[in-house]
Amino acid sequence: MSLLTVGSVAFDAIETPFGKTDKIVGGAGTYISLASSFFVGQQNIISVVGSDFPSEVLDEMNSRGIDTDGLQIKEGEKTFFWSGKYHNDMNSRDTLTTELNVLEHFDPIVPASYQDSSYVMLGNLSPLVQSKVVERMENRPKLIAMDTMNFWMDIAMDDLKKTISMVDVLILNDEEARQLTDEYALVTAAKKILKMGPSHVIVKKGEHGALLFSVDQMFFAPALPLAEVFDPTGAGDTFAGGFMGYIASTEDRSFENLKRAVIYGSAMASFCVEKFGTQRLLEVTQEDIINRVKEFSDLSSFDLNK
Amino acid sequence: MSLLTVGSVAFDAIETPFGKTDKIVGGAGTYISLASSFFVGQQNIISVVGSDFPSEVLDEMNSRGIDTDGLQIKEGEKTFFWSGKYHNDMNSRDTLTTELNVLEHFDPIVPASYQDSSYVMLGNLSPLVQSKVVERMENRPKLIAMDTMNFWMDIAMDDLKKTISMVDVLILNDEEARQLTDEYALVTAAKKILKMGPSHVIVKKGEHGALLFSVDQMFFAPALPLAEVFDPTGAGDTFAGGFMGYIASTEDRSFENLKRAVIYGSAMASFCVEKFGTQRLLEVTQEDIINRVKEFSDLSSFDLNK
Repeated sequence: MSLLTVGSVAFDAIETPFGKTDKIVGGAGTYISLASSFFVGQQNIISVVGSDFPSEVLDEMNSRGIDTDGLQIKEGEKTFFWSGKYHNDMNSRDTLTTELNVLEHFDPIVPASYQDSSYVMLGNLSPLVQSKVVERMENRPKLIAMDTMNFWMDIAMDDLKKTISMVDVLILNDEEARQLTDEYALVTAAKKILKMGPSHVIVKKGEHGALLFSVDQMFFAPALPLAEVFDPTGAGDTFAGGFMGYIASTEDRSFENLKRAVIYGSAMASFCVEKFGTQRLLEVTQEDIINRVKEFSDLSSFDLNK
Repeated sequence: MSLLTVGSVAFDAIETPFGKTDKIVGGAGTYISLASSFFVGQQNIISVVGSDFPSEVLDEMNSRGIDTDGLQIKEGEKTFFWSGKYHNDMNSRDTLTTELNVLEHFDPIVPASYQDSSYVMLGNLSPLVQSKVVERMENRPKLIAMDTMNFWMDIAMDDLKKTISMVDVLILNDEEARQLTDEYALVTAAKKILKMGPSHVIVKKGEHGALLFSVDQMFFAPALPLAEVFDPTGAGDTFAGGFMGYIASTEDRSFENLKRAVIYGSAMASFCVEKFGTQRLLEVTQEDIINRVKEFSDLSSFDLNK
């Protein structure tokens, strides 16, 4: 096994009803690789930052087994920056600033040492960049998963559909699944997506859990009912990281194992929202994870036979 | 065991994006008792209808073991009538007509033969009528569950809170739980409700499943992701009927058994929405139910250990 994550490493500034941050480290690639680092000892990342990006963060990533040979540092350029403000219900947000900076002309390079990556997680990025990475891999990975968002459906639907046709697992939220397929019922939307290429679809429903679909199977993973969501930023990426990290570490692509992976992804996401940015993820221990997945199991398990 | 249902037996006229009905038989008491009849051979109902109500429907109820001695027939008066129209998303509806008729001065009578009812399901009704039934029972039933709705919170909050303090299980939906407690997070709302009297709360989330809370335990039941919801009318009542029917038939009030009861309630509700009104419930077989709860189990079960 080896896991390759493609995704932004970036700065965020976040405002929630609980407070606001200055520029902090964020980005899909950051959340994904941090979350998956709890499952795999070594992994690779393809990304790009500017020379304004703190080297200590890259050191921290390296110390967690994240190889940054594929992370380009653009001298004299600035790192991608996003700022947003969450509404009171935490389910919607306004984007205040998007500065593409180094992402504008990002040409992903796949280092030779990454060519043997068996598991690839394409974090939310331009679908053209996502597909380039796949095209630049000499051997077809065993499993490619992909996250995306409504933004790409609005401005690059054709590119997006092409990239979707190249992957095994598409991860998106309920509204995105509806927009992609023009279907309201998620079962019907998932069926349409499974005809676009992927063998599996995961539809995230936020506080309502997640659904995993294959052509002939379906799994519903609960979300932990939380008293407080402090900051939802990165929760979806963290889910993807936990999901792929678990699969890469177990090297098992059966539906039963994908179900477990969804639970591990959900558990990692439930940590992520407890503090601003990556803060909580950096504190999590293996014991925390074991206890958290047990909570998911206790929450949803029942025995039909008395 | 014996189960007593209190609730309206009524006429509905329903419009959904799939079609509309003339006056058909509905009412919380009807749905609850029909759903629970799959679990208990004999049960009792307290309700009221006018002389316009078809006797064949009462015959049908009797044939399913529903004793109608407590169902008053008001000569020369008219049965409660509700009509409503569902919006395209099926999650919201407009009430077009509400004719209280016999419900306006409904004084519930508890026949002597009903006094030994150990399990009582108070369907959505005026909280004053609900509490009267409890007060008129000579012995405290083993378990009293209660359904309600936002309407009573708007116009009779004090009466409602008094009735809630008398019951063991409160069943309501997410928006109602929020309105009752002024809390957005359902975990926090449930904690507040558990301080109002009930030992258990069930928060129904429609297509997102249901949560069962006790002071120290929590259970998340999925909803079956359905390709089509044909008519949601009565789904909540049918859930309550399946839930209480299962508990009354097993005579087990443990949390583990309440979890199973939530699954059986959800399964019954999933049938209800497949056709207009009570139509689908009247066709369901025991085999259908066994297969449906198995679907719920398959949908949400996972094994953390490989």
